[in-house]
Amino acid sequence: MIIVPEREIAGLISAEDSFEAVEAVFGAMARGDAYNFPVIREAIGHADALYGFKSGFDRAGLVLGLKSGGYWPGNADKGLTNHQSTVVLFDADTGQPHALVGGNLLTALRTAAASAVSIRHLARADARVLGMIGAGHQSAFQMRAAVRQRDFDKVVGWNLHPEMLPRLAETAEELGLPFEAVSLEELGAQADVIVTITSSFAPSLLAAHVRPGTHIACMGTDTKGKQEVEAALLARARVFADEIAQSVSIGEAQHAVAEGLIAESDITEIGKVIIGAAPGRQSAEEITLFDGTGVGLQDLAVAARAVELAQARGVAQQVEM
Amino acid sequence: MIIVPEREIAGLISAEDSFEAVEAVFGAMARGDAYNFPVIREAIGHADALYGFKSGFDRAGLVLGLKSGGYWPGNADKGLTNHQSTVVLFDADTGQPHALVGGNLLTALRTAAASAVSIRHLARADARVLGMIGAGHQSAFQMRAAVRQRDFDKVVGWNLHPEMLPRLAETAEELGLPFEAVSLEELGAQADVIVTITSSFAPSLLAAHVRPGTHIACMGTDTKGKQEVEAALLARARVFADEIAQSVSIGEAQHAVAEGLIAESDITEIGKVIIGAAPGRQSAEEITLFDGTGVGLQDLAVAARAVELAQARGVAQQVEM
Repeated sequence: MIIVPEREIAGLISAEDSFEAVEAVFGAMARGDAYNFPVIREAIGHADALYGFKSGFDRAGLVLGLKSGGYWPGNADKGLTNHQSTVVLFDADTGQPHALVGGNLLTALRTAAASAVSIRHLARADARVLGMIGAGHQSAFQMRAAVRQRDFDKVVGWNLHPEMLPRLAETAEELGLPFEAVSLEELGAQADVIVTITSSFAPSLLAAHVRPGTHIACMGTDTKGKQEVEAALLARARVFADEIAQSVSIGEAQHAVAEGLIAESDITEIGKVIIGAAPGRQSAEEITLFDGTGVGLQDLAVAARAVELAQARGVAQQVEM
Repeated sequence: MIIVPEREIAGLISAEDSFEAVEAVFGAMARGDAYNFPVIREAIGHADALYGFKSGFDRAGLVLGLKSGGYWPGNADKGLTNHQSTVVLFDADTGQPHALVGGNLLTALRTAAASAVSIRHLARADARVLGMIGAGHQSAFQMRAAVRQRDFDKVVGWNLHPEMLPRLAETAEELGLPFEAVSLEELGAQADVIVTITSSFAPSLLAAHVRPGTHIACMGTDTKGKQEVEAALLARARVFADEIAQSVSIGEAQHAVAEGLIAESDITEIGKVIIGAAPGRQSAEEITLFDGTGVGLQDLAVAARAVELAQARGVAQQVEM
């Protein structure tokens, strides 16, 4: 069995590797070659922790396994990451354990890769201004992955807590792009592509903020009750998702569906666009919205890639099970 | 993180250790200190494999994690065990991975421990004859664990395929007990304690076979449709289970409940007996029946014990995650 510790991940797998792995597995899902198992998510009644598993099987890539992890709000005080993730891969031919992979950075990379995949397939080719809503830890990953997909010349950003905006400014600077902190109205008026990455339970971006032709990637909503954008925005947009079942239950689309503004059948699986089985953007005026809820297969895909790279570079630890 | 490979397990944890761990966690479940998460079980559409996870949290013992595993019917041809299990434990205070433990032998031990726990708490003190129904790989573990609980002087056994009966005879010999292969009628007439450990989809043992005062541990039924004993036998018995929710859905009690012969409320959680919150056997004439469906917390309990023992004996491998 192969061990790839958390500390090795940064040196192994790039944003581009993650993009390719996530795009490929979204395509496999759309072809029916890969599917996610039911998600387990439990408030365990200890340390205020939320804990669970996302799991699945990619029959095409023979990637089988789970990401176990959760949220331990007291970790920061101990010098640890609050979100803790570990991926375990199994040999699909025998069921024996194949690899154990640190999943913290991988989770950040696969979430960023998903919005980047949506930008590649749905944003206007001439998109120039990137709008960022949210300035937490994950926002830097989303911005770095997003700017690879179009020839952006500016980043505009908004955050509920303005004191966190320097993270966006620093990330934009790292990427060689000017940054401007703006109101939500101004963000909607300027941005061609908007990435929302918050843990909000009330909408920030309203339908009226957004101009025609915008692509929006909603990446923060992964739980019942969370919401980043006004439900009416989904009615104005063509809506895409990583997995439709999650999108309507725990994703951004839960609210628009519950309010009867859109139906489940209005949502297109992004993998269908990737494999050419459904149209992507159909006009320069259309608003496209990607609901990225985060599926286990994304985690398994980037972990499998990290294992391959660790083996190729001789940094995979072998333990006998 | 600690690695305890499969090959180390046999040298670390005994049937008695497993008994103590399983009895303790059944008690924790009954006190509300430990609970199982929903079970994931998937026919993955590759290698005819059934794959999934059992998981849970014991707040009292701070044991958190999952057993991942499944059934790969083609493994035997490759010289591997068809059932493949791996336990992953997490630090309940931080969510970080704590240990990875080979789960094949542990699964056999925890299943045997559960029927032994039921015998300790429910069989007549003067039980002398042990009846075994089923002669597969697991039957030896069940017999070894059972004979520790009462002063048995004989084993009688039955199996659908009589050519497998030598396994029961050899195991009884190993334990210093005479063995007799008998009909089901004869088995019921002689045995004070009966353990069923088959993967049958039709009842073997009938209500009319069993005499008053018998304790029966049904250990083979863990799936919708499986059945080891006639549903009418559950109506004649006082019924106990490891977990009532599993007992009525995928356990032996599924049939009696579906036929209206018993109600869910007729089933007593074995942990309640262990902690003294419910009566066990109430007379020498009563038939008691334990429905052992197999819960994730049993796997975690024996794995946690194996990790403690591995650490104490210096055979735990450490890998940095």
